[in-house]
Amino acid sequence: MECSPESLTTAERYKLMIGGIVPRPIAFVSTIAPDGRLNLAPYSFFNGLGSNPMTLLFCPVNNGDGTEKDSLRNAKPRGEGGTGEFVVNVATEAYIREVAAASEALPYGESEFELAKLHAAPSRVVAPPRVKESPIAFECRTLQVVRTNGREPAAGNVVIGEVVHLFVRDDLVSERYHIDHEKLAAVGRMGGPRYCRAQDVFELPRGRAALESDHE
Amino acid sequence: MECSPESLTTAERYKLMIGGIVPRPIAFVSTIAPDGRLNLAPYSFFNGLGSNPMTLLFCPVNNGDGTEKDSLRNAKPRGEGGTGEFVVNVATEAYIREVAAASEALPYGESEFELAKLHAAPSRVVAPPRVKESPIAFECRTLQVVRTNGREPAAGNVVIGEVVHLFVRDDLVSERYHIDHEKLAAVGRMGGPRYCRAQDVFELPRGRAALESDHE
Repeated sequence: MECSPESLTTAERYKLMIGGIVPRPIAFVSTIAPDGRLNLAPYSFFNGLGSNPMTLLFCPVNNGDGTEKDSLRNAKPRGEGGTGEFVVNVATEAYIREVAAASEALPYGESEFELAKLHAAPSRVVAPPRVKESPIAFECRTLQVVRTNGREPAAGNVVIGEVVHLFVRDDLVSERYHIDHEKLAAVGRMGGPRYCRAQDVFELPRGRAALESDHE
Repeated sequence: MECSPESLTTAERYKLMIGGIVPRPIAFVSTIAPDGRLNLAPYSFFNGLGSNPMTLLFCPVNNGDGTEKDSLRNAKPRGEGGTGEFVVNVATEAYIREVAAASEALPYGESEFELAKLHAAPSRVVAPPRVKESPIAFECRTLQVVRTNGREPAAGNVVIGEVVHLFVRDDLVSERYHIDHEKLAAVGRMGGPRYCRAQDVFELPRGRAALESDHE
């Protein structure tokens, strides 16, 4: 099957993207509105950007009616009406039901912390709290929001954040900053309603040595 | 453990990012230099951006000496010296050794297709070929490159591309554009030399129904 995206609907393009770009890490993003109300939502169009400066990004697509998702409204810079801060909590098996629960669309300002029965723990540098149940949290200041415009109002956005403080549960991290993936038990996002565990792991060397590697 | 990124080296920050942001999808990016030579390299700071327009992004961090990776040199817009095009091939179990092999740093212009013993198949709309061994390929035109600047030369870059043509192997995709994750057998990237299979899958409903779901 091959085609131009122009021949597909937005929903069809979305299905091909979430089915073909897998497994995706899940950012469970906590933000705070200018009036102090909390928001929490999972995003799987998320990844690291670089380590100098320490930056990451997530992509909150606009709602079907063209309005911005609450995470974007809160995380965008102060000059654009937001608070310019957000926290990325890493989704793990231990609380993945709560992560999925928080994807419910609540009216602006109603807290997903309550709906999902999760607890807010104070951040050190930014105003939005981290999720107490998350073993890793990246406190971020928004550097920039990049907007892509389509012919329909459901445009895309890239929120780029600089990590200003980070939290890792002690038992997960070595003195040399390696993270134990078995203890972390992160969960990735697949197409449709599917998630995947990240424990079926193998190793490969970099470069041409990989061709002779037996990774089974 | 908690700290400011300022207290860490770039390498330590990188280890925390690749260990904590998991599992990451792998973009196997093919590009072509202005003089016609091919390049192929895997990037795991990669994800979808949105489906209207159909956009994705990958983040090629600069080399330690501040120079740009070949994929960025080639994919950046024509006005900046590149060709403004790239193809994202999806990494799968069937050819993951070849993907890892192509991460070897070759001199600019030497082809990773030859090193990894992979085959180029012509793209339909863009100049860089897709990888014949890949069951999914997104042909992209570069919309924008966003650059983040640090105090060291190894800055980050976000290459945002619009998908202008896409290829999916027939047996993977349904008439309704669902992709079969078992047949796809995508591979995700973990920390260090680790990769993970994406077959240990479970389902959860969206919203509060997830709290009562038994996903085991």
